[in-house]
Amino acid sequence: MKPTHIEHIGIAVKSIDEALPFYENVMGLKCYNIEEVADQKVRTAFFMIGQTKIELLESTDPEGPVGKFIEKRGEGIHHIAFAVDQIEDKLRKAEAAGIRLIDSTPRKGAEGLSIAFLHPKSTFGVLTELCEDKNSKNK
Amino acid sequence: MKPTHIEHIGIAVKSIDEALPFYENVMGLKCYNIEEVADQKVRTAFFMIGQTKIELLESTDPEGPVGKFIEKRGEGIHHIAFAVDQIEDKLRKAEAAGIRLIDSTPRKGAEGLSIAFLHPKSTFGVLTELCEDKNSKNK
Repeated sequence: MKPTHIEHIGIAVKSIDEALPFYENVMGLKCYNIEEVADQKVRTAFFMIGQTKIELLESTDPEGPVGKFIEKRGEGIHHIAFAVDQIEDKLRKAEAAGIRLIDSTPRKGAEGLSIAFLHPKSTFGVLTELCEDKNSKNK
Repeated sequence: MKPTHIEHIGIAVKSIDEALPFYENVMGLKCYNIEEVADQKVRTAFFMIGQTKIELLESTDPEGPVGKFIEKRGEGIHHIAFAVDQIEDKLRKAEAAGIRLIDSTPRKGAEGLSIAFLHPKSTFGVLTELCEDKNSKNK
């Protein structure tokens, strides 16, 4: 698969407004974008740190995936996203290796990336996202 | 604080031997080091991906921090480590901002880094590590 870098780390928080001062004032990171991903029932806030983004995830619906995660486990690290090329090909290879897929074909995630999740039951408890920035390649 | 990059992501696994084939054969990463950190009661395996390491953590003692984590929450993402300069200074500033520290002074972690943890109660559920590679600066 050979991902090039960690694209982002997703962190589930109850409230972006409450968590923001920690990341901005204590960690010294700058939030450059807040956007809602209706499909995933989340509001997201992004910070850049080297090659990697921190993505805070606030649930907009208790029945959404992040709402359920927080209810079950509390706030905390939710997933890791690996930047890959040719995401469809990588999904087929993961499937062929016996990995259970949450998304068998890529869908559109935050910031317009093509994303797909691997199931944590197949990845030793880590909700693993693959993502490809097809927009940047078309620019 | 302005960390330069995500130094590593720590992932708690029951067995490095069992998890290794997923990271090597499916994700295409290469394990470049396995080392025991007796102080933390863990065996660690490292993979490089861009600027960031994936650090698998296998407990060597059920009473150690990773053993307890897995017993309570199962396998999964354990912590995020931010690369900083002047770690002592950063700890003092975090403390002054009201952040609860697990390590009030840095100690030696895997790969000879100076490390210190912030308490997840102060950081919205994320076990947050600061680390500084003082060795590389003396080379």
